[in-house]
Amino acid sequence: MSIIIAVDIGGTQIRAAAYRRGNLEPVQVQRSPTQGAGAPFERMCTLIQAIWPENMTVEKIVVALPGPVNPESGVVFSAPNISGWENFAIGPELEKRFGVRAKIGNDANLAALGEWRFGAGQGHHHVLYFTISTGIGGGVICDDRLLLGSRGLATEVGHISVMPDGRLCGCGQRGHLETFCSGPAIARYAGEQVASGVASSMGSIGKITARDVSEAANNGDALAIEALAQAGTLFGQALATFLHLFNPSIVIIGGGVSFSGKFLFDPIRESLAKHLMDPSYLKDLVITNAALGDEAGLMGALALGLLPDN
Amino acid sequence: MSIIIAVDIGGTQIRAAAYRRGNLEPVQVQRSPTQGAGAPFERMCTLIQAIWPENMTVEKIVVALPGPVNPESGVVFSAPNISGWENFAIGPELEKRFGVRAKIGNDANLAALGEWRFGAGQGHHHVLYFTISTGIGGGVICDDRLLLGSRGLATEVGHISVMPDGRLCGCGQRGHLETFCSGPAIARYAGEQVASGVASSMGSIGKITARDVSEAANNGDALAIEALAQAGTLFGQALATFLHLFNPSIVIIGGGVSFSGKFLFDPIRESLAKHLMDPSYLKDLVITNAALGDEAGLMGALALGLLPDN
Repeated sequence: MSIIIAVDIGGTQIRAAAYRRGNLEPVQVQRSPTQGAGAPFERMCTLIQAIWPENMTVEKIVVALPGPVNPESGVVFSAPNISGWENFAIGPELEKRFGVRAKIGNDANLAALGEWRFGAGQGHHHVLYFTISTGIGGGVICDDRLLLGSRGLATEVGHISVMPDGRLCGCGQRGHLETFCSGPAIARYAGEQVASGVASSMGSIGKITARDVSEAANNGDALAIEALAQAGTLFGQALATFLHLFNPSIVIIGGGVSFSGKFLFDPIRESLAKHLMDPSYLKDLVITNAALGDEAGLMGALALGLLPDN
Repeated sequence: MSIIIAVDIGGTQIRAAAYRRGNLEPVQVQRSPTQGAGAPFERMCTLIQAIWPENMTVEKIVVALPGPVNPESGVVFSAPNISGWENFAIGPELEKRFGVRAKIGNDANLAALGEWRFGAGQGHHHVLYFTISTGIGGGVICDDRLLLGSRGLATEVGHISVMPDGRLCGCGQRGHLETFCSGPAIARYAGEQVASGVASSMGSIGKITARDVSEAANNGDALAIEALAQAGTLFGQALATFLHLFNPSIVIIGGGVSFSGKFLFDPIRESLAKHLMDPSYLKDLVITNAALGDEAGLMGALALGLLPDN
């Protein structure tokens, strides 16, 4: 029985899981903090070693990485918060270390692949996936294939310009979708409004987070509802652009902010309908929450591992 | 020897050409005005009949259409200036009439396919193609496949929002790329400036066209150069968004406005470089003119015809 080892490198923890083909329940899972003593690559290798099966053949190792990668060369261009992983050939290094095929992917891209294969996107051939949390990432499945682009840098969905000369984005450019609709952007807006004297149940919170906004909205707080509506409205407008470009049959939204539910999704739907060039883009379109939650990275890595090597 | 019949339905004429596999020189070509007596479908059938080869088998008919189509069902949703072609099942109708397989595609999508297979994009696997003329259309090749979306409505590249609440677009929405960078948009800007008293060699022209602007720029007219630079700058900014989403290795720009050459391309390149989130998107990137000119539609239809049926 052959095994695929999936690794998900998150902001706080690295997880490694060993899967049998055809079985979504891992044989083994291990985790380790992303930050800590020693080189992150070595800590990852220790994890992989710890779950290496004794009497089964490991077919492939697949790693989901929080940054831009070239899936073909196995090079990660940069990974926020992981020092030393600039232009690091992690795929080839893993192959050298473990003697099996190693593949890598951007975590949001792989989450899209995971949702398509095992999650909310099952049965769809054209999938648009977003994860809205600290930033906005995502992935696109076209005709049952992950859209990667010539160097793996495609579908940076948070970095489309929605407001020329708008607010500065973490990437150095201005007016990107991420600057308006990410968790921190929603929290910032709420904080600014509170600071300017708008009444809100969030008034007593020191530093408001997107989770606070979501909770306050659930408790009927008008400012929180407005903050989410504003983000959803702009997201819906951007979504019209994405639909004009990708014409998916399903839009899947994951990440922490997606738990705001109807306070986010209703404005998204309303704004999307207003901004489409033609209502036919809505025909049979599903807009839904992600299904895999925190498992998206691991399941996406597994999904990539199950694809035939090219 | 089997034959593929390609048909290109343009604004002014319909052309039909019969090609042998492996030969880009058509065996027969016929043309007919798009507007005229009788139903357009019948005029197209007459053209096809006229080039139908006597001693060879016709394998397929492929039609390039100026409007949104569903390539899978063979339905054209609408075709500007062709009455009666709303939700018209042109593919199935052609199959019924001629008894051979018939396929259809949006003309800009097929032009992208043509440029990839026979034109400027040969050897590239990830191609972004634009045609800038009366409107802005285009197509995207991802991993050697045309990106169509779930109902064939993808890559409406002229209809991405670049300026929320900007000028009204022909599609009914606002602030789309097409409203700033199409031929009429460039001509309109030049006309407005002339009307407001800006000195220009175009001052004596009754109704300025994009071709006038292009010619005036070639003759050193400052306003014409500025009009093209303005359009190119905004196009370059939008191109950054496209690169973030598709990460192509080549950008091909065709259509009448592309003949403005450096007056358009230099500002595009400059603005693109300024608006990218990372210079790695420019690595090995080619930005170039389309190679097929008026043949793009026919060659694209041929390229589609040469692909294996799914």
